[in-house]
Amino acid sequence: MSDPSALQALFYPRSVAVVGASKKRTKIGYEITKNLRRFSGTVYAVTTSKGQVDGLPTYPSVADIPGDVDLAVLAIPAPQVAGVLEECGKKGVRAAVIISAGFSEAGNAEGERQLTALAARYDMALVGPNTVGIANTDVDLNATFLVQPTKGGIAFLTQSGALGAAVMYKTVYEDIGFSKFASLGNMAGATFGDLLDYLAEDEQTTSIALYIEGVQDGRAFLKAARACSKRKPVIALKSGSSQAGKRAATSHTGSLAGDDAIYDAAFRQAGIIRARTIDDMLDMAKAFSQPRPGGGSVAILTNAGGPGILAADACEHEGLTVAPLAEETKEALRGVLPPFASVTNPIDTIAQAGYEEYAACMRILQKDPHIDAILAVIVVPTFTRIGYSTHAQALLDSWKRKKTLVTCFMSGEVTNTSVELMKLNGIPAYPSPERAARALGALHTYERWYHEHHDSNTD
Amino acid sequence: MSDPSALQALFYPRSVAVVGASKKRTKIGYEITKNLRRFSGTVYAVTTSKGQVDGLPTYPSVADIPGDVDLAVLAIPAPQVAGVLEECGKKGVRAAVIISAGFSEAGNAEGERQLTALAARYDMALVGPNTVGIANTDVDLNATFLVQPTKGGIAFLTQSGALGAAVMYKTVYEDIGFSKFASLGNMAGATFGDLLDYLAEDEQTTSIALYIEGVQDGRAFLKAARACSKRKPVIALKSGSSQAGKRAATSHTGSLAGDDAIYDAAFRQAGIIRARTIDDMLDMAKAFSQPRPGGGSVAILTNAGGPGILAADACEHEGLTVAPLAEETKEALRGVLPPFASVTNPIDTIAQAGYEEYAACMRILQKDPHIDAILAVIVVPTFTRIGYSTHAQALLDSWKRKKTLVTCFMSGEVTNTSVELMKLNGIPAYPSPERAARALGALHTYERWYHEHHDSNTD
Repeated sequence: MSDPSALQALFYPRSVAVVGASKKRTKIGYEITKNLRRFSGTVYAVTTSKGQVDGLPTYPSVADIPGDVDLAVLAIPAPQVAGVLEECGKKGVRAAVIISAGFSEAGNAEGERQLTALAARYDMALVGPNTVGIANTDVDLNATFLVQPTKGGIAFLTQSGALGAAVMYKTVYEDIGFSKFASLGNMAGATFGDLLDYLAEDEQTTSIALYIEGVQDGRAFLKAARACSKRKPVIALKSGSSQAGKRAATSHTGSLAGDDAIYDAAFRQAGIIRARTIDDMLDMAKAFSQPRPGGGSVAILTNAGGPGILAADACEHEGLTVAPLAEETKEALRGVLPPFASVTNPIDTIAQAGYEEYAACMRILQKDPHIDAILAVIVVPTFTRIGYSTHAQALLDSWKRKKTLVTCFMSGEVTNTSVELMKLNGIPAYPSPERAARALGALHTYERWYHEHHDSNTD
Repeated sequence: MSDPSALQALFYPRSVAVVGASKKRTKIGYEITKNLRRFSGTVYAVTTSKGQVDGLPTYPSVADIPGDVDLAVLAIPAPQVAGVLEECGKKGVRAAVIISAGFSEAGNAEGERQLTALAARYDMALVGPNTVGIANTDVDLNATFLVQPTKGGIAFLTQSGALGAAVMYKTVYEDIGFSKFASLGNMAGATFGDLLDYLAEDEQTTSIALYIEGVQDGRAFLKAARACSKRKPVIALKSGSSQAGKRAATSHTGSLAGDDAIYDAAFRQAGIIRARTIDDMLDMAKAFSQPRPGGGSVAILTNAGGPGILAADACEHEGLTVAPLAEETKEALRGVLPPFASVTNPIDTIAQAGYEEYAACMRILQKDPHIDAILAVIVVPTFTRIGYSTHAQALLDSWKRKKTLVTCFMSGEVTNTSVELMKLNGIPAYPSPERAARALGALHTYERWYHEHHDSNTD
């Protein structure tokens, strides 16, 4: 188990040493050093080559570094790792990220056990080996050889480095923000459980997303997840749910993927929300920027009939209720909407309704005590005088930040500005009604679990 | 039932009259006239205003047009529609698209019956009323007030105009191409069945996607769908699968959404592949650019372990088989891959494998008679000397266009070029392994239905 203060040094180091720093663009050590350029703490380049690396003075070894080192990032051949790690321990380094591959994943279990032992002996937090690195956007620390992650409230932990890389590139493109990132690799040191304990306390983290292939100590993992879920939501994408997937997981990380139904039940008990895909995981994780709904009653507010029906279907399939509205609410909606609008639920303002009508509906729905959440579904008002971002603006101006609000803008490029407006204001926006409904379902599922486990003292 | 020659005039008119053409940018008649600018046939602007519209001479009425008119597009107030439609009939117009709303969807069922009767009397194909229009990319005919659709092999029919608009904008953004588009509106004339009969024969159409809220004559629809499915795949997104959705559908188009389980069974019998979401519908529809697989055995070829496991899970969940490979194939793969690659299925080339290795694997897998389809899953090779589009190029150079090939590129923006390369070569590319597997599942499902209904003479 990793020492919490060592994990603090992992994510908030005052100084970082890159062992295997390089001037060569094709080397991982080059990328890592370059990525640390924005970090405000001290960065030391350790390399046997002469001269500077990326403007930094170089040192032939960790021992030669004049100041203290909190975090060491090792990108050197596997046979050299244990020696350098021991040197780190002796120097008082508190945390190490071992990028290097060539350990248990390559049949070298003995070499990996040595790393575990060294980390324990020197009380160091150890991430890896065989990882793409870690990042903490709170202090612009990017100790990976990937892109600069976007800042946000999601902490993401991944057992697969390549999947972590894919997610990093994807989220930068889609403007989804992370608080912390860690690629756990072979987990010779820090486990999911250790990091969940740490992230439960992390103020920058609103929700936690996990990609899991298999956990060794299931009991410890579930205990940590359960404790963490009482603080903030944990969402997990667990692969190996099929026979073929299980076989592949065993061959990939040597993980025991285990019986999927058992994982499913255990996850539910621990409050872990299970994702089906990477998008699903991110969709749900980003929903938690919202006030959580007190119950499962959703009002769907749309400017288009068809998409409203799809949203109603999706909400019901996610266990939410699209209840008919109170007579009072319907009356109020009738007062502000055009004649052929529908004031049942979904509320279909029809395409002709613009800023005033949409904002008025929002105000009315927020007053109804029977409604827990609002799902706004907007199709580009192409055949009216209404601007493409009018509805987004109406939402922003009328939303009082009390009830849950989740949005869906459906028409590709022309709704980019609306989506941007939502993001800037911390409102989750999705490209389809089904994805929006699913995210809302996750908020509801979590809220229910949370209340059950806080209201009773049986846990 | 619409006359096939009238439907031919609808999609391949020699001349089009826009009734309600306008110089005012805020008018639908302006957008439609502008969108017809690229059409190579003759376009007539009918308006009571003086002067030209978009460079076209104007006529006060359809009767005043000097030449023949094959297609009339009506964007005028509802009370004027019947009169103009009658005038069209008298002039010998073969097809009419009625954009105008204000009929059965607004309680004016009598007005709508009048349109049906007029279309029947004059043997005109009638689309609408309450539609966003029709398009045929084969002759650059865009009789909608939406964007110019991208050219491609999918015919898309939608019962909801707004949903049709959302899909048009979305597909232009995502570069998904259509052969024909029709927003059916209230279906006073042409029904899904009529258009399926027509599209079954259309050479530009590879697959047909439908958005359905409810059909009136279920028997006729299923008969047409079944006949069409014997020629080419029909994929349907049917909304109203929940209680709330059903209520909303009834209020939206007055459709009887019907019992979802009955739709499900009827669809399956008619060979219709049911989509869950708009993306799902488009994902499946675009897969049919591929040779169809003879069976359900898939080889997953990936450069990253985690995504490979997700792909294996998804394939199995879609009813496909990710079978262990023949010893001979494994032996051949071992001969071309690095030591720690996995030659079971999924085949994980690992990140270090580049062009040569990936292409060699493709060649080996294509030789294996037990493999029906290849699912290529690529994560950006960020930590190697391999270029971002290397794997895409390897796929193109090694694929012999005999076995089914479906691809997944996972890392957002940096894989855009790869995705573009796939599109240019008619290979479907998806952003997640699950979506790729689902599309492959649709190919397999259709192929099975197709063989069952062609091998036996019981139908």
